[in-house]
Amino acid sequence: MSDRDRLIYLPLGGAGEIGMNCYVYGYGRQGAERLILVDIGVSFPDMDGQPGVDLILPDIDWLAERADRLDGIFITHAHEDHVGALGHLYRQLKAPVFAREFTAYHARRKMEEAGQDPDLVQVVGAYPEVAEAGPFQVQFAPISHSIPEASALVIDTPGGRIVHSGDFKIDHEPVVGEPFDEDLWTQVGQDGVRALICDSTNVFSGHPGRSESQLAEPIGALVAGAKGMVVATTFASNVARLKTLAEAGKSAGRTICLMGRAMKRMVTAAVETGVLTDFPATVSPEEATDIPRENLMLLVTGSQGERRAASAALSRGSYLGHELKEGDMFLFSSKTIPGNEVSVARIQNALAEQGVKVVDESAGFYHVSGHANRPDLEAMHDLIRPQILVPNHGEYRHLREHARVGIEKGLHGVIAPNGTMVELSGNQPGPVEFIEVGRTYLDGTAHVGAFDGVIRDRMKLALNGLVIVALVVDEDDQILEDSWVALRGLPEMVGDGADLAEMIEDELAEILPRLDDRTVGNDDKLEEAIKRTARQICVTEIGKKPEVTVLVSRLMAG
Amino acid sequence: MSDRDRLIYLPLGGAGEIGMNCYVYGYGRQGAERLILVDIGVSFPDMDGQPGVDLILPDIDWLAERADRLDGIFITHAHEDHVGALGHLYRQLKAPVFAREFTAYHARRKMEEAGQDPDLVQVVGAYPEVAEAGPFQVQFAPISHSIPEASALVIDTPGGRIVHSGDFKIDHEPVVGEPFDEDLWTQVGQDGVRALICDSTNVFSGHPGRSESQLAEPIGALVAGAKGMVVATTFASNVARLKTLAEAGKSAGRTICLMGRAMKRMVTAAVETGVLTDFPATVSPEEATDIPRENLMLLVTGSQGERRAASAALSRGSYLGHELKEGDMFLFSSKTIPGNEVSVARIQNALAEQGVKVVDESAGFYHVSGHANRPDLEAMHDLIRPQILVPNHGEYRHLREHARVGIEKGLHGVIAPNGTMVELSGNQPGPVEFIEVGRTYLDGTAHVGAFDGVIRDRMKLALNGLVIVALVVDEDDQILEDSWVALRGLPEMVGDGADLAEMIEDELAEILPRLDDRTVGNDDKLEEAIKRTARQICVTEIGKKPEVTVLVSRLMAG
Repeated sequence: MSDRDRLIYLPLGGAGEIGMNCYVYGYGRQGAERLILVDIGVSFPDMDGQPGVDLILPDIDWLAERADRLDGIFITHAHEDHVGALGHLYRQLKAPVFAREFTAYHARRKMEEAGQDPDLVQVVGAYPEVAEAGPFQVQFAPISHSIPEASALVIDTPGGRIVHSGDFKIDHEPVVGEPFDEDLWTQVGQDGVRALICDSTNVFSGHPGRSESQLAEPIGALVAGAKGMVVATTFASNVARLKTLAEAGKSAGRTICLMGRAMKRMVTAAVETGVLTDFPATVSPEEATDIPRENLMLLVTGSQGERRAASAALSRGSYLGHELKEGDMFLFSSKTIPGNEVSVARIQNALAEQGVKVVDESAGFYHVSGHANRPDLEAMHDLIRPQILVPNHGEYRHLREHARVGIEKGLHGVIAPNGTMVELSGNQPGPVEFIEVGRTYLDGTAHVGAFDGVIRDRMKLALNGLVIVALVVDEDDQILEDSWVALRGLPEMVGDGADLAEMIEDELAEILPRLDDRTVGNDDKLEEAIKRTARQICVTEIGKKPEVTVLVSRLMAG
Repeated sequence: MSDRDRLIYLPLGGAGEIGMNCYVYGYGRQGAERLILVDIGVSFPDMDGQPGVDLILPDIDWLAERADRLDGIFITHAHEDHVGALGHLYRQLKAPVFAREFTAYHARRKMEEAGQDPDLVQVVGAYPEVAEAGPFQVQFAPISHSIPEASALVIDTPGGRIVHSGDFKIDHEPVVGEPFDEDLWTQVGQDGVRALICDSTNVFSGHPGRSESQLAEPIGALVAGAKGMVVATTFASNVARLKTLAEAGKSAGRTICLMGRAMKRMVTAAVETGVLTDFPATVSPEEATDIPRENLMLLVTGSQGERRAASAALSRGSYLGHELKEGDMFLFSSKTIPGNEVSVARIQNALAEQGVKVVDESAGFYHVSGHANRPDLEAMHDLIRPQILVPNHGEYRHLREHARVGIEKGLHGVIAPNGTMVELSGNQPGPVEFIEVGRTYLDGTAHVGAFDGVIRDRMKLALNGLVIVALVVDEDDQILEDSWVALRGLPEMVGDGADLAEMIEDELAEILPRLDDRTVGNDDKLEEAIKRTARQICVTEIGKKPEVTVLVSRLMAG
């Protein structure tokens, strides 16, 4: 262990994946660094990889073991992949939380929902206001993104200045919130920046990004030309988009109605915290039932095809008294996140079956991304002029490409996926240690490790089906009666109409009496014999090797 | 029942979805029509909807009940979604199968693999050769697509001519196989076409489609500029693309090596049936290990991220003696089918981690679709000039949009999703009957109906986990000993370190002795009481309501 102080960066989530952002910075002597955490978000599970799981949380074991050295938690913005795990994991961290007002509003709700004290979240004003946390001086520098008050962090340490970009795009007319401010970033860069930790999401997009303000005209024209009811969906947190949509509706003489809890909550938060002004008047879904459909515009949740959101409900039939029909229009003013294509198509098809005209971003006019494209990333590099570039917020291929782009410009690019501790100080900045980090599943109220085998077991049940065998062994290790078999997720009848469970029971009735005492007396051996028999019959009869669970009830001597 | 003869169309698969194509045509008196089947394909299952299922087959119950009236099965081309179910379902149909030579090659293999006689597949030459099947005279008219010998069917009946487009694009230089032939289609249209049943896949693409031949230049340039090993993947059946890729490799001085069974099989079939000539010489993977990487090009299976294909194997490490490394290039000359995005990204990230440069179709240069875009569909309408347009091969939104396009041009457009029997004859052609059609799952060797509940049960296990309770009741309806509990897909330990199964056992030990005789004597009531208890504990301890299976072993007197 060295005597000198060092400056470190350690992604626990968000680097090598898109989602679950969770980044540690440290300054001090090796092994005794004071630490801060930037963001603590979630990822969303799917049936393919995490069936039944409610949320995916970062694995913060490394940090929890060093919680006594944690001086603060900083939240860059209120997206779920940046703040969603705060409440669930706070108990293990217990450090003060810092955020700007709109973000703090959401962070407090996360704390409350998890039974934590919301007052532990402190509001920090925008740059140049400074929040102190141990050796770190942190400023929330406004930066344009797809949610109000998104901030990059300017983190000053005795080891130099770090700029943590957070999610951002370069937008000079973001409709809601602060425009991208070249002067601010030039100023931040002028003092010398040791490292830029930078959003990589859109590094493969070669054209400059488009401004949120460019949507007003095409969306306005689309809504103005609509005849029946107009419904539009986008991310609830994209308050600027909601405003653009609502204004398009208002200009077309339509009354605006918000549907879906998340959407109402976001607009309320934006109005209460003052980031959203002049939002057109809205009516409740109940009030809206009195308004002729050609004068109505619904803004609804569910742009990603979520089964329980308003979009899905409307696609299935009526929702809160509203029903779509021939001549209505449904606008997806959103990008479909990879993995959600099938769910979104399901809703679009159901809408088409109702005769609704579906318009989505494939036309290229009705959505802009919240992330910087490659030319915009390069512009940011040029403004900040960091010595070191560490790409984050991206899958491995994004990190690699972003590092390549930086290296071509003469920056010191470092690829650091989750668990890679990078020393940012010293003459040879780069990876110094690899921490094993997994993911934690929130499953109901339980925290289940991704490697615990619980979810893997569920997937095995889903893929293979299950045979359950129960039998009773008496005091003298004699099997009593016949065993009982139940099936889950397997066909009851086989090809020729025979009952599969009975076939297994019959075969076990043949086999079990022939087992020797040593096998019957030993749970493992008995189980193994039963499993083999059950599987063999299934392979023969249905061409499938199922999971088998054996329950042996051993009667105790009186 | 009417006396007059009628001409009907009934999609059993492929209309209202992309995949599983299966279309019935009939001619004759109502209820006594003679029938033919066009295509009998599969869809591919996923964890999200059909965990553990091997293939999705169309539900042909309606046709199987009328198999005595089936005069022939016609296969338009050799893609799995058109021929994949032939072997699995043939036993229920038993009619002669007709196809062109390359397609017949694959159809015969499908028959053989399912234990059917491959000689039941008859080869038919291209238009104007005629295959007779009852009142139907069928001609296989060559049409360009992404597999050799794709054909539209020109079906003449006493009720008029039908053109069944099959999958097609308008390609005048398809690299392999016959170019799109305007003269042929003009001729087909001149005799008067009652109905065009037409591919709708790309109806939302507004620009004219690009020719396969346009890929030679960009792919050639890409491969010529590569330094290390070059690997390319595409659909194995896209023989033209394989040729383009192989020729690009050859021009760059590289030796070509095919990897993956499907790819070798396709090229062999194409060479043996004479559709593919002048394919560059290839070496085996073993021979290829002696060739310097900069002189080698691998053509591999797995463009959709399939876990067991060559692409995935290479992304995970070495495969057949080959290993990728920094400086190599991997080209996805393919479109990612919706739903496969995450699997493909997984492979691309793993390749990026090896330092491999990944190039995919997002650049827009290295793939063209095999389906007609909207302007090309309109060109086809104009060539054929049918009275009726029935869109097929599309999700509902595609069918609807395609019908709209046709109606705007003055055609009689009919939207007919799976199960919609359409009368094509008479003065008012349109839907006349709705047949309930589901889907059949091939699960191991068993055929499981989509509504049977088997797969639904598997999904419930995956989402909720399972508690299994076994207990023994004696001859006098007394519960013997304590019940035994096993868990599957649930955490063994709850928050405070207690054992969840034991907690349930303990609670049952409390509850069960208090149950009255009527409850214990009745399996349903006893089960219900046990389920309630087990669920209650799980909700309290892990916030989850699991599936519960109860096995009661009732000891018999004597």
